Amino acid sequence: MFGFTYYTPTKVVFGRKTEEQVGELILKEGAGKVLVHFGGQSAVRSGLLERIKASLDAAGIEHQELGGVVPNPRLSKVREGIEIGRKMGADFILAVGGGSVIDSAKAIAYALAEPEADVWELFAHTRQAKKCLPVGTVLTIAAAGSEMSNSCVITNEETGEKRSYNDDIARPRFAIMNPELTVTLPDWQTESGCADIMMHTMERYFVNGGTMEITDSIAEALLRTVMHNAEILHHDPANYEARAEVMWASSLAHNGLTGCGNDGGDFATHMLEHEMGGMFDVTHGAGLAAIWGTWARYVMKDCLPRFVRYAVNVMGVEPKENDEATALAGIEAMEAFYRRIGMPTNMRELGIEPTEEQILEMAKSCAAASGGVKGSAKKLYCADMAEIYRRAR
Amino acid sequence: MFGFTYYTPTKVVFGRKTEEQVGELILKEGAGKVLVHFGGQSAVRSGLLERIKASLDAAGIEHQELGGVVPNPRLSKVREGIEIGRKMGADFILAVGGGSVIDSAKAIAYALAEPEADVWELFAHTRQAKKCLPVGTVLTIAAAGSEMSNSCVITNEETGEKRSYNDDIARPRFAIMNPELTVTLPDWQTESGCADIMMHTMERYFVNGGTMEITDSIAEALLRTVMHNAEILHHDPANYEARAEVMWASSLAHNGLTGCGNDGGDFATHMLEHEMGGMFDVTHGAGLAAIWGTWARYVMKDCLPRFVRYAVNVMGVEPKENDEATALAGIEAMEAFYRRIGMPTNMRELGIEPTEEQILEMAKSCAAASGGVKGSAKKLYCADMAEIYRRAR
Repeated sequence: MFGFTYYTPTKVVFGRKTEEQVGELILKEGAGKVLVHFGGQSAVRSGLLERIKASLDAAGIEHQELGGVVPNPRLSKVREGIEIGRKMGADFILAVGGGSVIDSAKAIAYALAEPEADVWELFAHTRQAKKCLPVGTVLTIAAAGSEMSNSCVITNEETGEKRSYNDDIARPRFAIMNPELTVTLPDWQTESGCADIMMHTMERYFVNGGTMEITDSIAEALLRTVMHNAEILHHDPANYEARAEVMWASSLAHNGLTGCGNDGGDFATHMLEHEMGGMFDVTHGAGLAAIWGTWARYVMKDCLPRFVRYAVNVMGVEPKENDEATALAGIEAMEAFYRRIGMPTNMRELGIEPTEEQILEMAKSCAAASGGVKGSAKKLYCADMAEIYRRAR
Repeated sequence: MFGFTYYTPTKVVFGRKTEEQVGELILKEGAGKVLVHFGGQSAVRSGLLERIKASLDAAGIEHQELGGVVPNPRLSKVREGIEIGRKMGADFILAVGGGSVIDSAKAIAYALAEPEADVWELFAHTRQAKKCLPVGTVLTIAAAGSEMSNSCVITNEETGEKRSYNDDIARPRFAIMNPELTVTLPDWQTESGCADIMMHTMERYFVNGGTMEITDSIAEALLRTVMHNAEILHHDPANYEARAEVMWASSLAHNGLTGCGNDGGDFATHMLEHEMGGMFDVTHGAGLAAIWGTWARYVMKDCLPRFVRYAVNVMGVEPKENDEATALAGIEAMEAFYRRIGMPTNMRELGIEPTEEQILEMAKSCAAASGGVKGSAKKLYCADMAEIYRRAR
């Protein structure tokens, strides 16, 4: 067991119609000039944006909008937001969307708080942020957990780099979570979200080194709940209760709770997927599902007790003749689950077929972004990363 | 399932020697004049207070001390703290201790922030707090969860009333948790703490109305972990890992996590115990254990699905011939657990024998404090409360 810091200051306001409280919540933060950041047209068509603007108007809050955030949110859009935010003198960034919109909003918030510096330096890790404008969210996709997390991932489309920057000062002030807002999501998005939620917990679970029983048992409870509800939503997407379970799980999986006492987690699967996302623009959660099984088989022997525990406690596997057989059965059960919810278990099913050259490029970039080595279940170097990509084709 | 607000802004700094960070953490809060509040002499004898003062001195923080907080913390001590705090112009209250010290610190913090009003009005519920001085804690007893909670319970020893006041503005800014600091606790204190931790979760679990699967499964994971480690500590009190599991559980059990989506909880057992604590000055957790089994039998039929689930998922009971038998087996297993860790299962074992007159007085006071009725598993009125006290003798 390791010492840890747990810090989740985000106020969660959860339930039906909670988006109507947005104006009041921003007023409580002492802000009055809001950049409303969102993704595609669904927020407009559904009437959500109108309801939010009505709430802001009722609270006497000045606001401007910037839509058009895409999955794997781009630096160019961040720069657009910075420009608008500067001109209007924004003192609050409201993200209406999922992880991509929230991350884009965080990046804009960093930039507006330190206008003299370039924001990409944070993602290139050449400087640390000193300040960040307050961010709030109205969540419409349960997946990334960015609504409570300190993390932010941006893609520099000029270089193809997808990079993350984590800092507690960017944790959102509030997160409005109305599960009804996720009901109209396409199945692919819903299930990719579930894959992402689970992976945030799994990345903290497959570690070598200290663990804590209360953390493990909470993580397992969360994973079983998400699996159960992911299957319900695959067949009954309008199920409010299942939407709510998954939505709350998205925050708990990535706010730090499922890593307390662990060694910081593995996160190699996330790093491997970031390169796939940077090069091919795949859906993040689906990309994670596509690479996980191959990663798991590659590292299993180096982290056997955790894979055995996962197989038994999460996947419900009956212990086999030896630990390796049990662990493998757990991985196979997980892949069977992915298939049941329509998620890919390799790159071909994901719709990408990288060449050997592209694989080497991704591995090199992944190793560079990881400082040469990544992972706790097993330390992965550039050659390992390339081999995992190869086997996952 | 109900909507909910989840707000846990307290920064948790967990692990060995973390108390050495206290000066730095207070500086980050922008404070410089600290009232250090504590209980008995153990904090002095163990050298803890000296280490804390050294950390404050190193950070250039002015400080004064007030010890002597007792279990069921008293209004008179709160008034002493207010007096000292006013004279020194305190801008931060540091609680070094368990729930009693933290609650006393919160009450002082409320009073210093609104010097024109009397603090007991909050506990008498004749007014709401508008402000509260910042509070931080160095936790030395894992039990009450006050280190992350919004709650505060004070006993007015002139009237014998033990009353609570809950407000998010009193949630501590930070909680320093070093499990080593709890190693020297007497077994009775340790196990009373475990009983209290479990009850904070159980009060939110035994409800009629909405529930949420992710909350239930986390609650069950937490309860099983505390039970397991309570038994370890009964025989091996110096076990660091077990101390750590219980300490982190104490916060998670009462910071709101185990109630998300539920109807606000039952909390009748707590209300019943508060009267016992007010009249007889019993150890809170032991008082809860002493009354719980009787309460559970009294309300079981009105909340049967939850008692069955508890029996199976927490106590590991094999389902019996019918639900009532399963539920009853769960209650009996819980009482057997209490006995294994040296906790009482009735008032006689707790060391108190209230007369019929005292029972009626407690029931009347409990009903009054509850606004006439309390409970979600079953609504209890004054006559019900008296009958539970009677049966628990």
